[in-house]
Amino acid sequence: MKLHGYFRSSAAYRVRIALNLKGLTAEHLPHHLRKGEQTAPDYLVLNPQGLVPTLEDGEGSVLTQSLAIIEWLDETHPTPPLLPLDAMQRAKARAFALAIACDVHPVQNLKVLARLRQLGLPEEKVTDWAAWANREGLAACERLVAREPGPFCFGDVPTIADLCLVPQLANARRFGVDVSAFPRLLQAEAAAKAMPAFADAAPDRQPDAE
Amino acid sequence: MKLHGYFRSSAAYRVRIALNLKGLTAEHLPHHLRKGEQTAPDYLVLNPQGLVPTLEDGEGSVLTQSLAIIEWLDETHPTPPLLPLDAMQRAKARAFALAIACDVHPVQNLKVLARLRQLGLPEEKVTDWAAWANREGLAACERLVAREPGPFCFGDVPTIADLCLVPQLANARRFGVDVSAFPRLLQAEAAAKAMPAFADAAPDRQPDAE
Repeated sequence: MKLHGYFRSSAAYRVRIALNLKGLTAEHLPHHLRKGEQTAPDYLVLNPQGLVPTLEDGEGSVLTQSLAIIEWLDETHPTPPLLPLDAMQRAKARAFALAIACDVHPVQNLKVLARLRQLGLPEEKVTDWAAWANREGLAACERLVAREPGPFCFGDVPTIADLCLVPQLANARRFGVDVSAFPRLLQAEAAAKAMPAFADAAPDRQPDAE
Repeated sequence: MKLHGYFRSSAAYRVRIALNLKGLTAEHLPHHLRKGEQTAPDYLVLNPQGLVPTLEDGEGSVLTQSLAIIEWLDETHPTPPLLPLDAMQRAKARAFALAIACDVHPVQNLKVLARLRQLGLPEEKVTDWAAWANREGLAACERLVAREPGPFCFGDVPTIADLCLVPQLANARRFGVDVSAFPRLLQAEAAAKAMPAFADAAPDRQPDAE
């Protein structure tokens, strides 16, 4: 398999964690997002959105969208599961993941921040925007898992929720958000980061890290 | 079951279609988003993000995030399926749905547009922003299904992809996007709208429609 990514992309980071948890290896092909390499014509053939990650399965198929890739990995390599077994708990873990993947990450990604700059917004306001998206979203996430057993988001093993949480907390810190307001999320992050599958997927451990 | 929604919310619209396709009924509880009813304290207990939809299952559980609700409906009421049976096709249908649910819809939702207005952007530029998000995202979606058999996004029955597409096309038109640039998407939309499950879920058929 080949994983097209970028060290700092939190969507690619989610998939790196999933591959590690499943014990799968992939060739990592970095695309420098700040240099616009994700909009090269031959990459757009693979990923018409011009986003990372993209996973090539080695048999001619191409997968896009991190959560779709993670669900596919979970269906084709079921052990260890990345979703709870109970249908309602699965729904809650997916909802948490989507709260980050839909309502936080895309609102503060490179493309949106670049558009804000094009509209003439000063850099300070652009950072404020990114911090706002992270702060509001993570505050809701904290409440989504407040009553769930720990240490992970949904119990004693990591799920798709933790795969989304850990990269997003890294973004939040980069934009200056005070994450100490989210103790339950930090508990899950600490449990996750103690696992090599999470630690080895971190941006600063990637070959293209700057 | 109780579905908390809003006639014009495209995320609630997706779930209305899913319920109709499954032959399930729910009590519809509208929350007027433009009046801010989704941030009422008792609603935030159900949905800490202050978004619609929220589904109460009638047995004490509360589900949030439209795609998580749709996956749950599909797992608990498997007929007719809302995802292809083949794992790779499931991944492609999910990726299409996520391309809309992550990368188009949240970038042009009420909350983000309100934030742009707060930053002093004139109304014309706010509409431009929403149109840009729809145009770019739907252009990528057109390419994602270009080689898939029709008439629906992925073959001869509707999937989660069509559930996301039809409401998003309605948004795109509202923001003045020329959707004739997306013939394959319009083919899928036409097939979907011919089904009562889609037609009955349309915003103008809801009791809270204005």
